[in-house]
Parts: sequence; C-alpha cells; structure tokens
Amino acid sequence: MKIVLAQLNYHIGNFEANSDKIIDAIHKAKSKQADLIVFSELAICGYPPKDLLERKNFIEKTLKAIDLVALHCVDIAAVLGGPSINPHSKGKNLYNSAFFMCDGKVQSIHNKTLLPTYDIFDEYRYFEPNTEFNLVEYKGKKIALTICEDLWEKQPVDNNFAKEELYTVSPMEKLSQLKPDFVVNIAASPFSHNQKNIRTEILQSVSKKYQLPLIYVNQIGANTELIFDGDSMAINSKGDVACRLNYFEEDFSLIDLNEIEEQKAEEKEVDYIEKIHDALVLGLKDYFGKMGFKQATLGLSGGIDSAVTVVLAERALGKENVRVLLMPSEFSSDHSVKDAIDLANNLGIQYEIVPIQDIFKSFESNLAPIFGDLPFNIAEENIQARVRGTLIMGLSNKFGHIVLNTSNKSESAVGYGTLYGDMNGGIAVLGDVYKTDVFKLAYFMNKDEEVIPLNSIIKPPSAELRPDQKDSDSLPDYDILDEILFMYIEKNMPVSEIIEQGFAKEVVDKIIRLVNMNEYKRFQTAPVLRVSSKAFGYGRKIPLVAKH
Amino acid sequence: MKIVLAQLNYHIGNFEANSDKIIDAIHKAKSKQADLIVFSELAICGYPPKDLLERKNFIEKTLKAIDLVALHCVDIAAVLGGPSINPHSKGKNLYNSAFFMCDGKVQSIHNKTLLPTYDIFDEYRYFEPNTEFNLVEYKGKKIALTICEDLWEKQPVDNNFAKEELYTVSPMEKLSQLKPDFVVNIAASPFSHNQKNIRTEILQSVSKKYQLPLIYVNQIGANTELIFDGDSMAINSKGDVACRLNYFEEDFSLIDLNEIEEQKAEEKEVDYIEKIHDALVLGLKDYFGKMGFKQATLGLSGGIDSAVTVVLAERALGKENVRVLLMPSEFSSDHSVKDAIDLANNLGIQYEIVPIQDIFKSFESNLAPIFGDLPFNIAEENIQARVRGTLIMGLSNKFGHIVLNTSNKSESAVGYGTLYGDMNGGIAVLGDVYKTDVFKLAYFMNKDEEVIPLNSIIKPPSAELRPDQKDSDSLPDYDILDEILFMYIEKNMPVSEIIEQGFAKEVVDKIIRLVNMNEYKRFQTAPVLRVSSKAFGYGRKIPLVAKH
Repeated sequence: MKIVLAQLNYHIGNFEANSDKIIDAIHKAKSKQADLIVFSELAICGYPPKDLLERKNFIEKTLKAIDLVALHCVDIAAVLGGPSINPHSKGKNLYNSAFFMCDGKVQSIHNKTLLPTYDIFDEYRYFEPNTEFNLVEYKGKKIALTICEDLWEKQPVDNNFAKEELYTVSPMEKLSQLKPDFVVNIAASPFSHNQKNIRTEILQSVSKKYQLPLIYVNQIGANTELIFDGDSMAINSKGDVACRLNYFEEDFSLIDLNEIEEQKAEEKEVDYIEKIHDALVLGLKDYFGKMGFKQATLGLSGGIDSAVTVVLAERALGKENVRVLLMPSEFSSDHSVKDAIDLANNLGIQYEIVPIQDIFKSFESNLAPIFGDLPFNIAEENIQARVRGTLIMGLSNKFGHIVLNTSNKSESAVGYGTLYGDMNGGIAVLGDVYKTDVFKLAYFMNKDEEVIPLNSIIKPPSAELRPDQKDSDSLPDYDILDEILFMYIEKNMPVSEIIEQGFAKEVVDKIIRLVNMNEYKRFQTAPVLRVSSKAFGYGRKIPLVAKH
Repeated sequence: MKIVLAQLNYHIGNFEANSDKIIDAIHKAKSKQADLIVFSELAICGYPPKDLLERKNFIEKTLKAIDLVALHCVDIAAVLGGPSINPHSKGKNLYNSAFFMCDGKVQSIHNKTLLPTYDIFDEYRYFEPNTEFNLVEYKGKKIALTICEDLWEKQPVDNNFAKEELYTVSPMEKLSQLKPDFVVNIAASPFSHNQKNIRTEILQSVSKKYQLPLIYVNQIGANTELIFDGDSMAINSKGDVACRLNYFEEDFSLIDLNEIEEQKAEEKEVDYIEKIHDALVLGLKDYFGKMGFKQATLGLSGGIDSAVTVVLAERALGKENVRVLLMPSEFSSDHSVKDAIDLANNLGIQYEIVPIQDIFKSFESNLAPIFGDLPFNIAEENIQARVRGTLIMGLSNKFGHIVLNTSNKSESAVGYGTLYGDMNGGIAVLGDVYKTDVFKLAYFMNKDEEVIPLNSIIKPPSAELRPDQKDSDSLPDYDILDEILFMYIEKNMPVSEIIEQGFAKEVVDKIIRLVNMNEYKRFQTAPVLRVSSKAFGYGRKIPLVAKH
C-alpha cells in the first residue's frame, strides 16, 4: 500500500484555502498512484480553533468543506482531521475526529479518546472523549486510526508531584485487540525545543510494542503563539524511523508500506538554536501572512534583543518590509546609535532617528507641579520607555506597520520592561527565549558574516533609561538568572528545591518574588511565539490576585 | 440537626488567612450549638487557584491547612472544600473534594464528578472526575455531599447548537439510590447578572425531584476578574427557599433541618443594575485589598465612563484613596473640564489638571520629518490618548496608585479605544458593562443626589480627540449597538440570525467585523471584572490569527 504523508500549513477558519490545499494534495497523490493520503488533526478548520468551535456556522462550514473534500476521493482514500457532531443524546456537542473518506464520500468517522487538557491544550472544553473502537478496512488492510494524544500514555505536565499523570484508557490497547495491519496517527503537535526527542520516542515505542508500522502526520505553520514544526514520519514495525518529513515547511512524501520495513532514515541532528531560529522565522511569517499584514516596525536600540528581532523580521518578511525607529535618550551611548545604524545598513532596511529627549522634557515640565521635587526614579524611566512606545505606535498607526515586541523571556519573567512602553507590540518575538539563548541566536545569525554588530552582542545589557544603567545593577548574571527561571517556570520546582541546587537563597527568593509580582505585566502583553515547553501566555494560567 | 451555612471570602493561596477565618467560623458555630458547619468549594485555598494547583508546595500547604482545620472540629462536624490527592495509580493527580471532618480529623473525602470546562471554568485541566458514590453518616443522618456542578444536568454554554450539552452522568441519581436524608452542595459559582434565577431554579428542581432538603453554600468575594455573589441558601424538601444569605458580603446563618420544612424566605427582587453596582464595588475592593494596594487613580474626562468608574472606586476604596487626573486636549470642551471638576468636588477627591496639548505638540514636531504632510488621522488621535495613558501611569509609578481602566464593554467590543492609551490600567472596571447599562448605573448612582453631573450623562459620548468628534459618527446608537453585540457575544448567534432579528445587514456586518478585528486589542488589556455570562477575557478564547 502506497501512502502519502501530507504535511501542510492551515489557516484557522479559512475553509476555502484549507480545502483547496487539501484537494490539490489529493490530486497530486493520485497522480503518483497513492492508495491513501493522510492529513493532520483538525486540518480542515485549522488548529487550534478554540471557541470558534462553539459557533454553529463555523461547524456548518467545516462539515461542508469536509463533504467537498470527500468528493475528490475517487480512486484514492484520505484520512482528514476535523470536528464531527456527537450523535448521542448526551455529552459535548463535538468530537475531535479522523474522517476516513473514499469512493467520493465519508465512509467512517473515528474519534479522539484522549483529549489533552493541560498547558496550551484545552480540548476537553469542546470535545466529548471517544469510547468506541473500530478499525478501517481498505484494500485488504485493517487500519487503526488514532489522533495525536491517543498514542500517549501520560500527560507531560511538569508538576513535580510524586505520581505521573497516566491516562486511564489506552486507545491503542483497545485497537490492537482488533488486529490492525498498521497505525495512522494524525496530530497537531506544537514545537518545543526542550522536548525534542520525546515525540519520536513515544511513536517508536508504540510501533515496537504492537509491532506495527505507524504513519504520523503533523501540521506545520504558526497560528498566533503556537508554532508547529511538522516532523511527520513513517515508522516501521521494528520501530525504526523509515522516513521523516522536513521541519518548519510544507512537505509531501510518498511511502510504500512494504518498503519501509527495510528503510531507516538518515537522521541529522539539528542544534536547538537553529530550530528556535527557524521556528521564530516561521512564526513571524505566518503571523503576518495569515493576518494579511505586510510590514513590521520596531525600535532599534543598539542592544541585542532588538537586533535579533529585526534580523528574524528581515528573514521572515524581507528587507523591504521592515522599517525601524532609533529613539535614543539622553542616556544612550553614541555607540548604541552607531550599532543600530550599522545593523540597519547591514540588513538594508529603512531607519529613522527620533531622539526622545524633547518629548520627555515636555512630560517632565508638565508633571512638575505634581511631582514637585521628588527624585528621578522608575516613574521617569518608564515615561521615557512610554515615549518610545508611543512613537513606534505612531509609526504603526500612520503607515500600517505592525510593531514587534522585543522583550525576551528573562526580562519578561522578572518584569524588567515597561508596560505600555517597550512591552508594546502585536507579537512578542523573543518572549519565550531566555536571554542566554538570545545571545546564542545572535552568534548563530552571525555565523557566516557579521550581520549583528559584535558590540551589540558583547556590551553589558542596559535599558539606557538612567545614567550608566546596567541590567546587572539589579539582576544576577543572565546565566544564573536563566537557570533559576527555567527551574521555576519550565520545571515548576518549589523555591526550596531550587535553592538546594546550589543557588543563594536571597538571589532565588528575590527572583521568584519578581516573577510572581509581575504576572500582571505579562497578562497585558502581546501573544508570545512559543518555542519552549512552558511559555508565558495561554499555557500558563496563574491567578493575578493570589498570595504566593 | 442544626447546620451553619458559612459564606466567606477567601484569598487564593493565603492559607493562613483562609484557615483562620474558617476556624473562627467553626468556633462561632460551636458556640451556637450547631451540629454541622458547611464551607464552600475549594475554600481552603481559594477559587480559582488555576495553575497553582500544579505546584507541589501549594498542595502541601493546602493539605496541612486542612489538617489544622480538622483539629478544631470537636463536638461539631464540618464540610470543607479543597483539593485532594488522587490515590489511584492512573488519572490526574488531584480531585476537587469535599472533606467531611469531625472528632478532630478528616473522616471521609467526597470528590466532584462533573468538572465544568467551559467559559471561565477549566477544572478538567487539574482534576480527575469522581466515579465512586458514598454518603456520610453523622448523628443518625445520611448526607449526600456534592460539589457545585454535580447538581447540574447540562452545561450552560450558548453555542446555538441543536442539542443541549447534557452530562453523561448524574451524581445525584447515584447518590439518591443510597437514600440520603439531605443534600449538601458546596459551590464556587460566580455572579452573572443575566443568569440570575437559573441557580435557584436548578437547586429547587433537585430538591423537588428527590424530595430532599438541600444546603447550598457559595463563596463571596472577588478573585481577579471573577466576582462571587454568595447567595447561599437552604431549600426544604418541597423546593421552597427557606433561607437565603446576603449577596456580596460574608454571611453566617444557622438553620434547623426540621424547621426549614415550614419556612419560606421572604424574597425581595433586586434590580440587575443594583447587583452590577454592588458586584463592581466588591470586585474593586477585593482587587485592592487582596493585592495589598490602597490607592487608585484614573483619568477623569467629563464623560460618563470615567464618571461611573470613579464613583465605584470612591465607594470601594474611600474618597481619601482615589485621586484623578484631568487631561484636557485642545478638542475638549470647557464643559468637560467643568463636569469632571464638579464630580471630583462632589466626591471630595483630589484632582489635578495636566493639559496634553504641549506634550502632543512635542510628539507632532518630532514626528514631522517622518509623517511629512500626511493628514491628521487616527495616528494623531492615538498619540493624544497615549500621552494621557503615559501621564496617568507616571502618577501611578511616582505615587504607587493603581490605574483603573474605564473602557466599557461596547467600546471594548468594537475596538473604540486606544491600546496603550485609554485602555491602560490594572483592572478594567466597566469592561463587562455595555454602554446602555453604564447609563443606567449613572442614574442609579444619582438616585438620592446628583453625584455625577447630569451633563456627563446626557451629552453625546465623545473621545474628544478631534474637532467635534462624536461616538455616533462611526457607530450606531448605543441601544442598537448593544443589542447586536449581546446577540453575538453572549448568545453566540450567527450574523445571519442577528440580521433576521430586524437589523440592517450593513450595520450588523460592520459591527461584527469590528468585533473580530479587535480581538488583538482585548488580548492585551487588563483583567475585566466579570458581571455577565460572557465577559471578554479568560472565558472567551478566540484565536487571533484566524479568518472570521
């Protein structure tokens, strides 16, 4: 049996574009004499559709699009992900389903049993879990259709409890009793750089345990904060990865079920920084492309965060679509301005300079009757950052550019940034990248030539909002900061256990206190392109009004 | 049997304060010869704890606090809500439980079966659903302990599907087979003005169906966006409400199970505007009190939204804790300034005036090289709003006041507000109140004397960001706008069905388009005090990058 793995990029709610793309792939697969083509989870409507699933007309459009696709399944079968209506009198209205289609219509519907409801997932909000298990019979083969989490045994939540959260049901256990010939798993599994091999290991373990070939198809592309890396694969019954599709791009691969038994893909190890880089470029590209935006703008400070962000923007959108503003304060060094100009010139992008001192003075003099002779403090620092935020938004409003937020995960974690100032923007490009990884990204970008001026990378980080300010005045070194943050945020470790790892109690206490007291800032920021297993935003729900 | 309904206000994660309060209530109940005292759902840790439930030390502190409370249950029994550890080898780590305690210890744990996972609820994210049903035997009575949603038959989600989402299990059905003498339901059920009688009706129908008395205890108080109204009650086996506790305040009521059979509470109908008023005052009070903040500030424009907000703030925090800034633009009428001053004087609060024209001109001249001779448009309007936002944040940063966001639900829906400008603030006070209800709130506030200058209420709403600007230049009248918004947001109705209600297609299309294209603005705003069945924020999850 010849099977096509169709790894495509879908746009949520864009039924026309999605079904056109799916139908094109079906015809291409037919022209290659494929017997079966497999698309990813909820492909027809895009993933994650969230509360659009509660809209009746969204579901009607979905079902119509599915019927349209089925019409094209003549002399070929397809497995397509989409929501289906729960026909039973009780339970949630919908199932998360795999539609098996051939002979021009939907032949059977197979529903997802294990509905991830943790981190960024909330599938139980919308879907009824499946309780019935059937195989598909097609061309003499029996196929076990499963959906993403159905092959997982436990929920990968880092909560440091004694017990792992094992699922109470095993769909594969049930399906294997019906003696399938191979397994299909359709997925919408987002990228996370620090879980890189788990996915492959789980799929291989299923293959080996049941001694069955496994076809895994994931989507690629970004939908708001979530970036899907693809990484679709065919695994033979020995558990070898016979074929693996490209990361971060659409791909289309024809495999022969008999032949993969003897195949083993050549695997090349890609460094996680390169993957983060590619993920962020795709994240930006899709944010702009799917929203119908063309041009980006940001404030270029001469520092490393805005430098890395602008390079990502240039790579995602093209130099003609990126325009920057340099907004030096009276505390900015000449070098900062020069570094920013050099970078803009290296990239060939348009830049303008608007010093903020005049406007800041105007704020100062107008607030003087209220502020009196109170000393310069965080209030004045933030006013400067907000002058910048207002200038860049002015550019955005006048010319229709989208502002990119340049905050990194480390500073976002400890609240080292000004709300309504430098935290402005439509999308937070580096919001899930710790500062130590921002440095690595900068070096990676410079690997062939010095795009980012070395000085922007090596000089001590500073917000330049008061004389001789340095990040290290109030924060520990970033390598220490990031380690502590990782244990608290990604690993959910209690403070006492973090201290046990060998960090000074007063440092850990201070950092954790900063993280907790700055939840309110993160609440009001742009969506963060997610590249880790625990990003700020949708997948991390901390009550604001709580005692920590 | 004498039972105390303890309707208390809990602070999430503040185990010391919560357990002190619970223990005090137990001793008070004992002094009144009560046999049993009932607290609300997850009382010990506060509701909703969200992802704090994934932290091991949060659970450890919870369990310790529960044991401490149990020690005080001598000569009295208590039902207390809290998370418990799932002892089985599979499933989520936690249950959402009712702890039955007497003789100084926890005697049994009863778990929640129906875990709401819709709108603002995401309990399935944390808890394993219960599958075992047992009664408590105490002083010769058999008690059915249930938790909130356990008594509901369907999920109240307005998704306009053909079928209601009925639950597949009925915990009361199971428990009733064990022949209980009465039912206890502990809840954390948030206030929503447009679902006012549903709660009572459901509880009465359970009482009547099983012919059992029912003790219902809800919490009061606000935790970030959610406001809990209390409304605890005792219902006799005929389905009559025998006793109802106060709305929006802590309350403590002793009932006798025999006596309630002949009792019927005198019910007074409270207008929904008064309830919204009381809810918002409580919401503000708890936001400040539980965060440890004292003072609020906001921009007073002379318009109705900031007027209603400042009155709510004065009532929640006291006049000495509210300070306002008047920030007239060159387009503000003299009358606006006078109305704002009159209001500040009526309330006896401190005000200062900072005209924004100078600062705005400074922005204009600094941006002139970039903007050239492009005409005055939304860019300049937004700069003015952002100058105001920066001034008010300057006050906040200098003096430690928390900024109140004054956007109402209508303008927030259609994006009629400036991100990083007038949308600034720590909490959105009116963000779930449609403009037509803001007017009603203003009249309600003026019922005894004219607190809000009548002119602020009756003049045509305007942002005063360009000459002679009126909201009605670009929006339909608010009564039409609000009706359309309600059908789209609260009722989830398709556009076609809204038009069928008799609205002009072009008006409906325009408004819905505005709602959809402004999801990004709402994504970045402060938490909204929720008073309706569908507020912007946590309970409404719309993907930003999607085609509508």
